[in-house]
Amino acid sequence: METVVAELEMEECLALLARTKLGRLGFVRKGRPMILPVNYAFDGDVIVFRSGPGGKQSNVPLRRVAFEIDGVDEESGTGWSVVVQGHAFEITHTIDRTSAARRMLPIEPMAPGNRDHWIEVIPEVITGRRIVTA
Amino acid sequence: METVVAELEMEECLALLARTKLGRLGFVRKGRPMILPVNYAFDGDVIVFRSGPGGKQSNVPLRRVAFEIDGVDEESGTGWSVVVQGHAFEITHTIDRTSAARRMLPIEPMAPGNRDHWIEVIPEVITGRRIVTA
Repeated sequence: METVVAELEMEECLALLARTKLGRLGFVRKGRPMILPVNYAFDGDVIVFRSGPGGKQSNVPLRRVAFEIDGVDEESGTGWSVVVQGHAFEITHTIDRTSAARRMLPIEPMAPGNRDHWIEVIPEVITGRRIVTA
Repeated sequence: METVVAELEMEECLALLARTKLGRLGFVRKGRPMILPVNYAFDGDVIVFRSGPGGKQSNVPLRRVAFEIDGVDEESGTGWSVVVQGHAFEITHTIDRTSAARRMLPIEPMAPGNRDHWIEVIPEVITGRRIVTA
């Protein structure tokens, strides 16, 4: 069985980010790496998700995070993943029009409870790859 | 639509770790959080995966990592996730019998190429939850 790995073009990474709903946020909490699944939206520029208090964010205005999505295309039998590295900002109370628009994005957090915190992740590096098994 | 979140019992976390093949490793590289998907095996105690040189590991003998799996049970319409926090060790050249046995675990890395490095993750904290939509 031969496998070939291909780097994804930026356009394809963005398309996958736009049509996926569940991703995983990687961050450092108390000096330790942590990963949590989040339902998110991608407006073409930033990743937006909602979080409960003290959960996936803190009051630190700017912090480094990673964000990952992956999946399998059943028809083609290929696996793919997209990894974003960037900065997370809380936009719950920001008053600029862009933030206000982002707080209108349709995001359905899977988990119940208070999800009043809006967080955006501004990508700095986006990479993706696809693994094709021939 | 009502959703209820339930913490998973340890036994269920371990069962999910044992029957899943694809997880995501969270770690810090050059001071920045990173997430990469990995194919892995779980022998009941530790998570084992294979990595290429300089990829998901370094020569640091002990480092903190996170590891996450998630999925959806189609029949029950519930989402679940398990998150492990622990330490990663390279066991490529360790000569104890346990390491040797772990290097026999059946792991098929999705990506092609040199995957000669064997890494184990020793869990310190394992948590899991299931989200039920009623």
